Amino acid sequence: MPNRKNVKLPHSIHFNSGSWEALNTYLSTSGFSKVFVLTDENTNTHCLPIFQRNCTLKNFEVLSMKAGESHKTIDSCVTLWQQLSEKGADRKSLLINLGGGVVTDLGGFVAATFKRGIHCIHIPTSLLAMVDASVGGKNGVDLGSLKNQIGVIKQPDLVLVTTEFLKTLPEDHFISGLAEMLKHGLIHSEAYWQKVSNYDKHTGDDLDTLILESILIKHSVVSADPNEENLRKTLNYGHTLGHAIESYCLDHSERRALLHGEAIAIGMILATFISSVLLSFPKKKLEEISRVIFNYFPKQEFNRSDIENVIKLLIYDKKNTNGKVHFVLLEAIGSHKINCEVPNSLIYSAFEYYENF
Amino acid sequence: MPNRKNVKLPHSIHFNSGSWEALNTYLSTSGFSKVFVLTDENTNTHCLPIFQRNCTLKNFEVLSMKAGESHKTIDSCVTLWQQLSEKGADRKSLLINLGGGVVTDLGGFVAATFKRGIHCIHIPTSLLAMVDASVGGKNGVDLGSLKNQIGVIKQPDLVLVTTEFLKTLPEDHFISGLAEMLKHGLIHSEAYWQKVSNYDKHTGDDLDTLILESILIKHSVVSADPNEENLRKTLNYGHTLGHAIESYCLDHSERRALLHGEAIAIGMILATFISSVLLSFPKKKLEEISRVIFNYFPKQEFNRSDIENVIKLLIYDKKNTNGKVHFVLLEAIGSHKINCEVPNSLIYSAFEYYENF
Repeated sequence: MPNRKNVKLPHSIHFNSGSWEALNTYLSTSGFSKVFVLTDENTNTHCLPIFQRNCTLKNFEVLSMKAGESHKTIDSCVTLWQQLSEKGADRKSLLINLGGGVVTDLGGFVAATFKRGIHCIHIPTSLLAMVDASVGGKNGVDLGSLKNQIGVIKQPDLVLVTTEFLKTLPEDHFISGLAEMLKHGLIHSEAYWQKVSNYDKHTGDDLDTLILESILIKHSVVSADPNEENLRKTLNYGHTLGHAIESYCLDHSERRALLHGEAIAIGMILATFISSVLLSFPKKKLEEISRVIFNYFPKQEFNRSDIENVIKLLIYDKKNTNGKVHFVLLEAIGSHKINCEVPNSLIYSAFEYYENF
Repeated sequence: MPNRKNVKLPHSIHFNSGSWEALNTYLSTSGFSKVFVLTDENTNTHCLPIFQRNCTLKNFEVLSMKAGESHKTIDSCVTLWQQLSEKGADRKSLLINLGGGVVTDLGGFVAATFKRGIHCIHIPTSLLAMVDASVGGKNGVDLGSLKNQIGVIKQPDLVLVTTEFLKTLPEDHFISGLAEMLKHGLIHSEAYWQKVSNYDKHTGDDLDTLILESILIKHSVVSADPNEENLRKTLNYGHTLGHAIESYCLDHSERRALLHGEAIAIGMILATFISSVLLSFPKKKLEEISRVIFNYFPKQEFNRSDIENVIKLLIYDKKNTNGKVHFVLLEAIGSHKINCEVPNSLIYSAFEYYENF
């Protein structure tokens, strides 16, 4: 187990063995008027049975949405708001979001806004949702191809992380989640970076420990700065270009839609290259990081016109102000600098580095 | 001026002479990246010129929505979110909502959810928005014909109440606002009830004082209970049936859509009748209240089937839990009781009283 002396999980986050007990206690003592469980097509098939086996409450209503980032829309919210209305949800009702990041982000927003806020629990079933999306209270949906443009920050009542669900996860979704864990290493600690870099996906040893440590890192950052004034921005490492790349691929049907982690992995290589130019991030470490990331995430191709369009999308990034694009960069692993301005020419160079690695 | 010794306006609410100065100071010292002003067709024509005359900042962008409750929808939000995106709004941008309750409710929700929250100022231009909608941070939109089903509670940066705008208001909208002021009297103080009852709409004497006192009452209630656990529910007096009547008329094109205050006025007569039966609210006062309200709000007709449909809509009221409809009722003027259950038969009797008065 990682050292939990300095960073404690709050009472609202429960991990593995304690999760189902925490859920059942909470359900039996809170007097909810109705309980709803939101799934997508995949978690409805693969995760709901596990939930049903462990949850002592039996009379809940299941809501379902289509799977995938392309359904993380206001239209999906409208459908769910209407279903909650029709099924008599009220302010004492609870929505349990059982799924990956799309389900926890969208379900969190639906709960935060239905009748100005009903109760909400996240049960992340993907690695990405466990180590990232479900921790910190950010929720929301995309606006067209622009990621997470609409949402609020509101903490769920509980987050229940049960790594048993990872057995239900397709390989590429599992790898996608590793990108955020690698990011936690890069922004927070060389030691953790080394541990995740050396993770052996074939044996799976220590995975639970690595996940818990990732959650602890994310939690320590968001509790120090819940409204993203400073420190929380570091979690955006690799996301400025990563989100733009993700939006661009989502919007161009001739390209394969990238999973969030796949896009962020590219964004991290680009941001680390930019860091090496602007902040003298060590070249050897840049190469090590690129090698580790390429080991998990095969290279994608971007031509000049792709890159131009990605740069155009940067102005929609939520961290930008006054029309200026702000990056999180690194001086070294674990040593970050926020609000860095980056000239477009350097972004082209970064893509060139990425393509030629 | 009303006695302000016990109840103070917070720093964020400014009244008449201080309003424009507060706005100009705030704009010149806050370093907003962009300023947007949301209007509807009416306030664009009648109120924007007053705003432009008084606001020292000149380079703001005007957004506009269609006027009226039927446009208080998620679709209107999507249009505005897209416009904000296209015009480069970021987290340091400000949205000023210049309009009645629809504009402040919807604009407040758009601002609270765009990029997880941008800055927001309300400048209410209708009497209803001045004494009710703009105070307390509730925002939101309707879901189909169901009122305010989607929203959050978030305080705007500033609320600037300038009664000069009332000159731009059509008579029926002005009267509609009086309903909420009468409600403040009923739930809070006999003395204030008497003052508003005796208000002479032809001379307009003391109107500013009455408005300020109404804002103070609303503010004292919402600051004591911002999340509507107890006391804030009293502001719902007349709204349980009032909202259902408003939704019913909105949803039936053969009926005239009622203004919010018109619907609430009916709801208050019904709630006061129910109070007289369940809580022995004095019969003489019931008659006085009915007389005062009918003096402003002409009788509407409801047949048995209308009433049945109104009752069906009650289950969507946001204050309900566990499928039970909860009313705020009165033991006397200023003495309220929340969470009262009311049998349907009594609702029919209340409509009968209303129709036969």
